Amino acid sequence: MKNVKEYIEANKDRFLNELIDLLKIPSISADTAFSQDVIDAARAVEKALKEAGCDTTEICETDGYPVVFGEKIVDPKLPTVLVYGHYDVQPPDPMNLWDSPPFEPVIKKTDLHPDGAIFARGACDDKGQFYMHVKAVEYMIKEDVLPCNVKFMIEGEEEVGSDSLEAFLDKNRDKLKNDVILISDTGMIANDVPSITTGLRGLSYVEVEVTGPNRDLHSGIYGGAVPNPINILSKMIASLHDENNRITIPGFYDKVEELSPEDRALMAEAPFNVEDYKKALDIGDVYGEKGYTTPERYSIRPTLDVNGIWGGYTGEGAKTVIASKAFAKISMRLVPDQDPDEITQLFMDHFMAIAPKGVKVKVKPHHGGLPYVTPIDNIGYQAAAKAYETTFGKIAIPERGGGSIPIVALFEQILDSKIILMGFGLDSDAIHSPNEHFGIWNYLKGIETIPYFYKYYTELATQQ
Amino acid sequence: MKNVKEYIEANKDRFLNELIDLLKIPSISADTAFSQDVIDAARAVEKALKEAGCDTTEICETDGYPVVFGEKIVDPKLPTVLVYGHYDVQPPDPMNLWDSPPFEPVIKKTDLHPDGAIFARGACDDKGQFYMHVKAVEYMIKEDVLPCNVKFMIEGEEEVGSDSLEAFLDKNRDKLKNDVILISDTGMIANDVPSITTGLRGLSYVEVEVTGPNRDLHSGIYGGAVPNPINILSKMIASLHDENNRITIPGFYDKVEELSPEDRALMAEAPFNVEDYKKALDIGDVYGEKGYTTPERYSIRPTLDVNGIWGGYTGEGAKTVIASKAFAKISMRLVPDQDPDEITQLFMDHFMAIAPKGVKVKVKPHHGGLPYVTPIDNIGYQAAAKAYETTFGKIAIPERGGGSIPIVALFEQILDSKIILMGFGLDSDAIHSPNEHFGIWNYLKGIETIPYFYKYYTELATQQ
Repeated sequence: MKNVKEYIEANKDRFLNELIDLLKIPSISADTAFSQDVIDAARAVEKALKEAGCDTTEICETDGYPVVFGEKIVDPKLPTVLVYGHYDVQPPDPMNLWDSPPFEPVIKKTDLHPDGAIFARGACDDKGQFYMHVKAVEYMIKEDVLPCNVKFMIEGEEEVGSDSLEAFLDKNRDKLKNDVILISDTGMIANDVPSITTGLRGLSYVEVEVTGPNRDLHSGIYGGAVPNPINILSKMIASLHDENNRITIPGFYDKVEELSPEDRALMAEAPFNVEDYKKALDIGDVYGEKGYTTPERYSIRPTLDVNGIWGGYTGEGAKTVIASKAFAKISMRLVPDQDPDEITQLFMDHFMAIAPKGVKVKVKPHHGGLPYVTPIDNIGYQAAAKAYETTFGKIAIPERGGGSIPIVALFEQILDSKIILMGFGLDSDAIHSPNEHFGIWNYLKGIETIPYFYKYYTELATQQ
Repeated sequence: MKNVKEYIEANKDRFLNELIDLLKIPSISADTAFSQDVIDAARAVEKALKEAGCDTTEICETDGYPVVFGEKIVDPKLPTVLVYGHYDVQPPDPMNLWDSPPFEPVIKKTDLHPDGAIFARGACDDKGQFYMHVKAVEYMIKEDVLPCNVKFMIEGEEEVGSDSLEAFLDKNRDKLKNDVILISDTGMIANDVPSITTGLRGLSYVEVEVTGPNRDLHSGIYGGAVPNPINILSKMIASLHDENNRITIPGFYDKVEELSPEDRALMAEAPFNVEDYKKALDIGDVYGEKGYTTPERYSIRPTLDVNGIWGGYTGEGAKTVIASKAFAKISMRLVPDQDPDEITQLFMDHFMAIAPKGVKVKVKPHHGGLPYVTPIDNIGYQAAAKAYETTFGKIAIPERGGGSIPIVALFEQILDSKIILMGFGLDSDAIHSPNEHFGIWNYLKGIETIPYFYKYYTELATQQ
């Protein structure tokens, strides 16, 4: 693959412009107001797969947003890599915190991205990262060095729980048949510290509603005598953690896999500086479960975070009102072997149980996902490790990630193959945040590294 | 005053239509988007005072919204009644809970208002109630039975703390010189249970901001390791009450006047049915400070209520984000002899003190107000009591109200006269809530009762 660098050099402006065009489409799956844009993004992805050289492409309808499929079959006897990604993005709000409009991509230099980064919602999560694969495959096809078969499965509901994907996988086992699943929807430690994600946390996401009086009330006439749903929701939320920041839901930790001292020691070898971490986030101190380090807290430990809360008067000035209702969105990150449905049920039972008599409580489950851990002794992981070593000149560090790709565990269950998580973004790329961005160096480095995965994977697979 | 009933009968349609026109003006002082409407309301009030027969009217500029002044001097040697009210209204949101638009008044019958009630923001608080005085004075002037002098001071900032009024009172002591101040901005127990408000709670209102990380974060990558400002704000709010629902701010209760068993026994005589109360609000149980009855909790006890809370993602669907900031609006109702500035300071000190190291906390004071208690042995109270007895055929019950009119205590301090609170609304009239309304019977009964106050007050004052 000597000429991969030249190919990238010769085409990098086009690679950037194509991604920028894709980023201009506000494909926000969480907000129905943008449903046409989500569809438009699917169409754009199919077009890109065709242009990259896939000989079959298809927009596959589901009960939700479509899955874009594409494939290039070199020889049915050769191994097949299935690339997964998603073309939908997170909502951009709070809008006022964006330095430039989220769907008008701009390139700016940052300390961590001296060659510039593309600022736009979805730049890193996940449009920029799955598009690396489209361009890497384009290179291998055009330069006739694609060593095996490749299939693409790019969905449009990842940010809202991939509700339609399980049925899609079930119905299309043959079409999706593969030997290994390759995903770039995670990050790496630093541009000079390549890492491969070997684990992902699961997710349970609920929305709660607390109702006090049947209407908003004057806080003078009623204050002190009626259940205030905001005060009570705050009390209920506060009670979900104990003084050691452990979650108080009965049974919550029952199935949590405790790592051995050896595994924890191994984890501790990954470079991490808590002072830099605090400085980067401008926080006076880290915060979390007693007895665990910061990297452990965000990777091997389960969590409970309120992602949104609202109730009463939130406008300008002062309004002396007691609200009728208060709401919160609460998510729990899960680790092996917690089961999202079971945890969601435990949460619901507990949250109902702690509600005082004066209020009515509703809990509505949103999406969930199983945690996942990749064994590092399989040839997929080894091929990825060799690829990183080739292009970075360093051994990649195996790392447990804190995020969730709810569908990953299902892939293994239904498609019966291992998942390799080759992420090229950085934690500081602000995914899910205002000013999300993706380093141009990272984008091109991904395009350069991916073909080596195909090369080494095919070699290892065919040797067997 | 034999012909007061006839006058009302002959003019009641006009009385209603004039009020309806005033209610159509969205004079929301809390929201700068409506500032022109607030000014328009002031002009409408001046016009109404002129038409009622005041020989002087004036729109008095202040640093904020103007105060509308009007007077009718019968004889400088006679006593002078100063009528206070406000032409500004509370914000109407949540709009979706209104059965009809808040600024398009409609008349509907209710169980408590079989003769119909006017539904509109400000119907009861306070446009409908101060307008009773305008019409009562119109009657006395037109029928030539006004027994004393009258002055009107109708402001436009009551719902946002009357910030400009203290300076206005200071500058206009002569112009506002009076013997008694008459206000209808409170309620009565029931249409067949007239009551006179003898006390009001004070108010301290603050807005708090809790900042965790310097930007919104992905809850997977960071969840469990950083201070989540929403979780922490919830914890801080929850800690403001103990297990007996007593407020935990050090020194908060130090100056609270404890009522004697006799006074509490007297209060307990006012008709109150806790089952009806729970049923009317559709709450499973009442909620409040241990050791006190519901009427005590909303009148003679101080409170702390969150009036609004917001932070993170509050849109449709699910967003796995850790917010950078969380906010709450918190008000405390105060009783004699608590001082709002002192309580605000105690709150700020305590709230800062309980903030964990990981977050930054800001507390911004909004408006405050002193609690107030009227002695029932003064001639103003006696005149009011005789007026109610005349038109209701019953003795009015002296009642401590839970609400606040922050400026009332200042009136006594600066203008050196007693305040008489003759309210004709009902607690169920939903002031500060969607579907605020004011009974037509109450509106007309007020217009009928007020002239008797002037009659008896003048008699008692001139006898002295």
